[in-house]
Amino acid sequence: MEQEIKYVLPAEIEQESMRIIGQELAQRGINLPQETEAVVKRVIHTTADFDYVENLRFTPDAVPKALEALWSGRAVITDTNMAKAGISKSALTQLSCEVHCFMADRDVAEAAKAHGTTRAAAAMQKAAKEYPEAVFAVGNAPTALLTLCELIRNGLRPALVIAVPVGFVNVVESKQRIFQLCLDAGIPCIAAMGRKGGSNVAASICNALMYTALGTLDPARL
Amino acid sequence: MEQEIKYVLPAEIEQESMRIIGQELAQRGINLPQETEAVVKRVIHTTADFDYVENLRFTPDAVPKALEALWSGRAVITDTNMAKAGISKSALTQLSCEVHCFMADRDVAEAAKAHGTTRAAAAMQKAAKEYPEAVFAVGNAPTALLTLCELIRNGLRPALVIAVPVGFVNVVESKQRIFQLCLDAGIPCIAAMGRKGGSNVAASICNALMYTALGTLDPARL
Repeated sequence: MEQEIKYVLPAEIEQESMRIIGQELAQRGINLPQETEAVVKRVIHTTADFDYVENLRFTPDAVPKALEALWSGRAVITDTNMAKAGISKSALTQLSCEVHCFMADRDVAEAAKAHGTTRAAAAMQKAAKEYPEAVFAVGNAPTALLTLCELIRNGLRPALVIAVPVGFVNVVESKQRIFQLCLDAGIPCIAAMGRKGGSNVAASICNALMYTALGTLDPARL
Repeated sequence: MEQEIKYVLPAEIEQESMRIIGQELAQRGINLPQETEAVVKRVIHTTADFDYVENLRFTPDAVPKALEALWSGRAVITDTNMAKAGISKSALTQLSCEVHCFMADRDVAEAAKAHGTTRAAAAMQKAAKEYPEAVFAVGNAPTALLTLCELIRNGLRPALVIAVPVGFVNVVESKQRIFQLCLDAGIPCIAAMGRKGGSNVAASICNALMYTALGTLDPARL
């Protein structure tokens, strides 16, 4: 006989998932700091991967500073349309924030070609001009992070850098570099050390911060 | 002194990443079957997670049957706009395929409310009516898979089911159920067993199949 699967609505699934994640963290003897708990748990919820307990690093006060940025309506910049699609539009609207991804813009493609660089690098250049105090959420391109490093050395002061590209080439190094640079410059940064990450992780971190900023962890209330 | 990071263009990163993945698979003594190799490697490329070697399951001839579907221009249906955003538009165009996600449609929200079900379930109902022979790529909602199970029992014969939701509630069970049902009904299915998966994984599998259908694994050629 086929096992019964209880039909559960998304908001209940969310709540029950967070309960299971909390329970399994406790079983592993892991006590997350209150400040970073919502972000770490939501990334585990997005990936079903407890490695992120170890991988995720936060500069001092990254979360409270990120919340301030969201409360003041800073723009969110992503390096993929996939990350942009994964960010809660309802939460953005309630916070009077906007999300932008310049990867598919014609002028970005032209600038990349003209300067022999990547569209991701050119997209960050454009974003830094138009929204210098934004939240930069990078889930895909190491070249986007390297470009942000250059821009920061030249004075850019983003509200937050989310540095979570995934992959095998330049990924580990670029995340280490931007995290250290942000640490030195006093710029809030949340990074996923090691190879893992992705557009889904970038979106998940943005959503966790927005839900916290809105005083709720329950997307059904958003 | 700061470590030098060689500036590499995306197509080269892609190639080098696949080489590293191949090398690490060999070091682990893993020999992937030729038929499924492109899909498994691309999912590892997307997630940096070698667990997918074990997690990904294919019904017999799922890949060749999926390629036939793509060559004949079948539509691709996703259960999130994030997965839709992650699917290569260039590859879709070259194959004369389209991708649709009905999650944000007003009639889907109304149908979900009227029937006390989820938008994901209602979106699958709509897709099954409009594109009964599509590729269904489900990376998020167990209820989308359970709805597809019902529809298949009532005669729906999709070209391929990609069953890769991520999470902690109903995810494992719904993926097991649809995989067994597809196996019994002779419907091609690619599933990620266990908790892991996601919209990124769904998009990655679609892209791997499309790149293979186009006779190339190199997105720079697309």
